[in-house]
Amino acid sequence: MTQQDAGNRTAADYLIASKRCDIHGLEQLLDTGRLVVAVSNLIHALQRERGAANVYLASGGRRFARDLPGLRQAALKQERQFRARLTGIDPAAGAMPGASRLYSRVAYAIHGLDELRSVREEVRGLRLDPESVVEGYSQLIHGLLAVVFEAADSAVDPDISRLLVAMFHLMQGKELAGRERAIGAGAFARGEFGERLTERLRHLIDNQERCFEIFTGFADDPSLATWRRIGAGEASTELERLRRKACTAPPEQPADPDRADRWFEEASRRIDGLKQVEDQLEGSLEHLCARKLEAARDDLDCHEQHLEALAGKPDEPAAFAVFFDGGGAAAGTATYTTDVASPQLGRSLVDLVQSQSVRLQRMSEELDEARTALAERKTVERAKGLVMQHRGMTEEEAYRFLRQVAMAQSRRLADVASDAVAMVDLLREA
Amino acid sequence: MTQQDAGNRTAADYLIASKRCDIHGLEQLLDTGRLVVAVSNLIHALQRERGAANVYLASGGRRFARDLPGLRQAALKQERQFRARLTGIDPAAGAMPGASRLYSRVAYAIHGLDELRSVREEVRGLRLDPESVVEGYSQLIHGLLAVVFEAADSAVDPDISRLLVAMFHLMQGKELAGRERAIGAGAFARGEFGERLTERLRHLIDNQERCFEIFTGFADDPSLATWRRIGAGEASTELERLRRKACTAPPEQPADPDRADRWFEEASRRIDGLKQVEDQLEGSLEHLCARKLEAARDDLDCHEQHLEALAGKPDEPAAFAVFFDGGGAAAGTATYTTDVASPQLGRSLVDLVQSQSVRLQRMSEELDEARTALAERKTVERAKGLVMQHRGMTEEEAYRFLRQVAMAQSRRLADVASDAVAMVDLLREA
Repeated sequence: MTQQDAGNRTAADYLIASKRCDIHGLEQLLDTGRLVVAVSNLIHALQRERGAANVYLASGGRRFARDLPGLRQAALKQERQFRARLTGIDPAAGAMPGASRLYSRVAYAIHGLDELRSVREEVRGLRLDPESVVEGYSQLIHGLLAVVFEAADSAVDPDISRLLVAMFHLMQGKELAGRERAIGAGAFARGEFGERLTERLRHLIDNQERCFEIFTGFADDPSLATWRRIGAGEASTELERLRRKACTAPPEQPADPDRADRWFEEASRRIDGLKQVEDQLEGSLEHLCARKLEAARDDLDCHEQHLEALAGKPDEPAAFAVFFDGGGAAAGTATYTTDVASPQLGRSLVDLVQSQSVRLQRMSEELDEARTALAERKTVERAKGLVMQHRGMTEEEAYRFLRQVAMAQSRRLADVASDAVAMVDLLREA
Repeated sequence: MTQQDAGNRTAADYLIASKRCDIHGLEQLLDTGRLVVAVSNLIHALQRERGAANVYLASGGRRFARDLPGLRQAALKQERQFRARLTGIDPAAGAMPGASRLYSRVAYAIHGLDELRSVREEVRGLRLDPESVVEGYSQLIHGLLAVVFEAADSAVDPDISRLLVAMFHLMQGKELAGRERAIGAGAFARGEFGERLTERLRHLIDNQERCFEIFTGFADDPSLATWRRIGAGEASTELERLRRKACTAPPEQPADPDRADRWFEEASRRIDGLKQVEDQLEGSLEHLCARKLEAARDDLDCHEQHLEALAGKPDEPAAFAVFFDGGGAAAGTATYTTDVASPQLGRSLVDLVQSQSVRLQRMSEELDEARTALAERKTVERAKGLVMQHRGMTEEEAYRFLRQVAMAQSRRLADVASDAVAMVDLLREA
């Protein structure tokens, strides 16, 4: 179809165009899904490097000196794969929904990866303190997770969107577990405990649980089966015992390298288990994208054949389908039956168009549902930021503050956050 | 940028890609806006043709016989312009957000326009009854309005989205005024009044007011000024008098062609006034799109120059911006200041990336606000359809039923509708 003959385009052409858009969206989702896999692997490698760099610095270069180069190489390999995967979302194509936000997140992550090269030099020379290095890695991982968030938020298929929402929350929960590992390992290695550490650990544990709750609400059955089999939802008895030790130890304790190692091992075992669930979920995602894409392509073939057959037949005079029979589906009042892929013989063009409309409408409703989880997360983040700004609190304090308000009022955290944001909007306008 | 050198793409490349996506989205909005203008003109012409065809058929071909061919020609001319405008949203491009839904709506409308050719023949030969012809035209116009709805729903800029939301509701309100004109004119011409007519008129008037309320909530100042100047919000005293006559007349009355004419004239004056507001709003829309596009292009130029200058400078070792200084904005906790178009001198790459992120996040929040009006409309439509299906009611009865429930519970119609939809979802799952 060229621009010149647009006046001759038929209703069938636009129905086909609509179906092609569906296919195009699924093709992009397949690429996005693969990008998410690359991000997941890169984050996993960075988490391991972070943990090792932390212990290396905390021990004045004595521990992990031999492991660190290999972990760096592994992270660099994953970084190359991540950068290669970005080809799939070619900026020149440029019109993917939400692409603008995705690219802006990618720009941030790429910049962080560029900085990492020099940071590694500083770590090697023991010229940075462990806590800020952990914070820096966490920041970069946070930036990479934002890429996954946008990928989930821009998905146009409700089932795929559900898996991406599950994936984002699993990855986020795993990262919180990773931060817990780093902070705990540092504390055992240096012997620094006390109230601030307890507070941070409690925040990280609480937040992990919230993430995993959403994960279990949106994940598919095979991933949930892996999740249950590994027991990834709960920390091991040993990890719980070490958590308790960390939280009840008096502020200044002698450094205990052995306990630091045990903590690191136990936490790593848990994180590796979470990675297994992630891998399973990634498999499901790829499989679902491929299956949906195949179905959409079959559906298009089927429609093209059917429409060709219809075009051969002369128009019956009784076929005033839009004019005298089209009310229901167009007004969104058709019964919401599941659409079958193959257009049944004898279905008119208008039947096909309406079934496409109903299908798209249903999809958009289901999509809203999956996106609500993401929207609530955005609101909580924003409320946290506003509380930090207005009350001069740290991120953890702000989160705890919102949490306490929610508990005191017996309300959901997301609702309290939403009120906080709305109130600040009012203040800003006044 | 080719796929091969993706590994070499810098953070700056992705920032530029993000900005290009913004521009691309605005370019598509400019085309979509022009399509909406073409739809508005086509609907206006079809509304006039519908009114004349109605009176022509109701009078057994005696009245409006001379005007009808001219009105048909005018509608055909607008149809050609509508079809020509569709070139702007070339299906081959295919990746516009929401394009799939838009094309499916276009397919339906195009099919209706194709049918209209044969319907016109039938009208000419007096072979159809006026009521079903009015219903048929209304159906087609409903299909065209669905195109505008999708255009509004897929807009990626919050300010433009607001104008499109205002536009859709103005057009919808005007169409309800058009249906009121047709139904009233038929009633006066045939002398058929009674409870059913009263019910339909009340429904149409009530619904118009709801649409105009949303229009005034989202329209820009110049359009609101035109709206107030013309007094388009209220019906004239004469129209109100005729409305009262129509609603209080006993079921069988002698036909009154004079009163039919006065009704038609008064209602048309009002509708023409609404069209003037529509034209003003269209002007604002085009102007806003062009202005935003220009600003986005300037912003891109500015960024490109700035980034080129940055690329020339050696990286300072202190510039670990993502690593040790990036928490705030990336976590969505940056202060929500309005972004200026020109990147100030001295701003680092990460500053620019974060300001783009914050801008996009803010835009997406504002967009949600405008889309809520559309989402609520979808919910009310769906609830109406479910009530029709489950209680065997007509559209008007279903609407009145929901309205009564809302009034009895002192709640908003949209909330009652949302509950109704949620309850049916539960029933379906059980």
